[in-house]
Amino acid sequence: MTEDDFSLRDATLAIVGLGLMGGSLALALYERNACKKILAVDQNATTCGQVRARGIDARPNLDAITPADVIVLATPVRTIIDLLPRVGAMAKPNAIVMDLGSTKRDITQAMNTLPAGVQVIGTHPMCGKETAGFGAADPNLFRDAVFVLTPLARTADETMAFAQSLAQTLGARPLIIDAERHDKIVATISHLPYVLASTLMLIANERAHDDDWLFALAASGFRDTSRLAASDTTMMLDILMTNRGNIVDLLRECAQRTNQLANLLERGDEKMLRDILESAAAKRRTLFNQQSKIENRKLL
Amino acid sequence: MTEDDFSLRDATLAIVGLGLMGGSLALALYERNACKKILAVDQNATTCGQVRARGIDARPNLDAITPADVIVLATPVRTIIDLLPRVGAMAKPNAIVMDLGSTKRDITQAMNTLPAGVQVIGTHPMCGKETAGFGAADPNLFRDAVFVLTPLARTADETMAFAQSLAQTLGARPLIIDAERHDKIVATISHLPYVLASTLMLIANERAHDDDWLFALAASGFRDTSRLAASDTTMMLDILMTNRGNIVDLLRECAQRTNQLANLLERGDEKMLRDILESAAAKRRTLFNQQSKIENRKLL
Repeated sequence: MTEDDFSLRDATLAIVGLGLMGGSLALALYERNACKKILAVDQNATTCGQVRARGIDARPNLDAITPADVIVLATPVRTIIDLLPRVGAMAKPNAIVMDLGSTKRDITQAMNTLPAGVQVIGTHPMCGKETAGFGAADPNLFRDAVFVLTPLARTADETMAFAQSLAQTLGARPLIIDAERHDKIVATISHLPYVLASTLMLIANERAHDDDWLFALAASGFRDTSRLAASDTTMMLDILMTNRGNIVDLLRECAQRTNQLANLLERGDEKMLRDILESAAAKRRTLFNQQSKIENRKLL
Repeated sequence: MTEDDFSLRDATLAIVGLGLMGGSLALALYERNACKKILAVDQNATTCGQVRARGIDARPNLDAITPADVIVLATPVRTIIDLLPRVGAMAKPNAIVMDLGSTKRDITQAMNTLPAGVQVIGTHPMCGKETAGFGAADPNLFRDAVFVLTPLARTADETMAFAQSLAQTLGARPLIIDAERHDKIVATISHLPYVLASTLMLIANERAHDDDWLFALAASGFRDTSRLAASDTTMMLDILMTNRGNIVDLLRECAQRTNQLANLLERGDEKMLRDILESAAAKRRTLFNQQSKIENRKLL
């Protein structure tokens, strides 16, 4: 195969890591009959059995990726970084190595060290659930999601075109953005919400020790605000550790702002409180109505 | 009418304030044909027109409540407190005055100053939406919700029984709890989530000034964690101001915890971070599965 005639339909595609993201990708491509062949790899034999039960070839050993034209790494971020040298050494000449990891700077830096003959591109589909594992996988997970592409300087046009067509095949919307900018954005709109949800859960759980009716009164507001706290801890710890600078800045700002709100409330400064809370409310009320318009304008 | 033969079916029931909560109550009782008569009152003439269009008698003047056996105040908390003396003076002997306000200490204290012949009880249905107004009202809003009842020392058994039967008629689950304890609990499971959602929204909005693609990448995690920020500011400001002590304590704790998490992340203390985040995750994963069991055991 040469780059000239490369398409998803002709590709043998390996997916390493069959959790929520990798499993959803495998199911989406399999159900659409989108590739020549899917080679699924997960170190957990039980997971491999679940995947095989859905009709997809799944094996526990990384060696299975060797024949692949495209290799998609869908493990937690630091496992992707650890796997990249081995995967780069095993990949066929001109094979594309890509990933679905939630931070992109460290991963694309690691991709940059792979042999020159290997094509590389980072991706991050902006979708997910707080439930992890192949049991939560959903072939429609990517539908209408923004699908971030973070090319490297060495990424060929054909590789970029392939990644875009993969995203479109999944019903997602490709968006090209550089890795540093991606990491800064997701720190705010994805990683901070996770830490806030966890903080809320920790405080509530501590208070529940003093009042065992506390959670009996929790309704949809608490349920939604705390939802992300249930996310897989290993996955999230990798994200936090590979996006530390951005997230530390946001947590410091968050501490300042909650202290400021406490000060305003303590001294009863209703005018200032109203202005602050109303500006948040006004933005939030229009956000998800406007968002699809913004995206449609900006996306490829 | 005497207390002995008092029932919801025989009652003329007035509802003051026809926003999300009062409007939902009016629709729920009207559709179930649960009362002899509903008298709806809202100072906004447009709202009254919308309510009348649904078949319910609605008027802009508070005088309309005079014939009522039961008066339910469903305005923001401080408006309830302001209305109570007038309502107490207008109410028939033995009429029940109740409210649906989100904090209970200040309201029940104000209820306690009403003439001895007026029956009083505080209530707080644990349900809601971030959208306000009669347009968001839903006759099924209360279904399966915990319906907090905060009786006063002067509340008669018959008044308590009436409030319980009202909650049950709405498909809700009555829970008797004292006002101070209620306010402490809801500070954690309702008011803190609102302030955190607002803080997240404020930080994101500020960062979006530096990167206009920021919100294009926001997905379901951001959507859910920020949802409560869209709540009605006037309603929330009344809640914050009448539950200040509890909320200030929680915001200070929140600032400490986010700073602590920033410190752990900065120095890469993964062991401690994992322990903290995993304890939040473990609790959140089981919470809403267990909740219905806890409630069923505890409720009346």
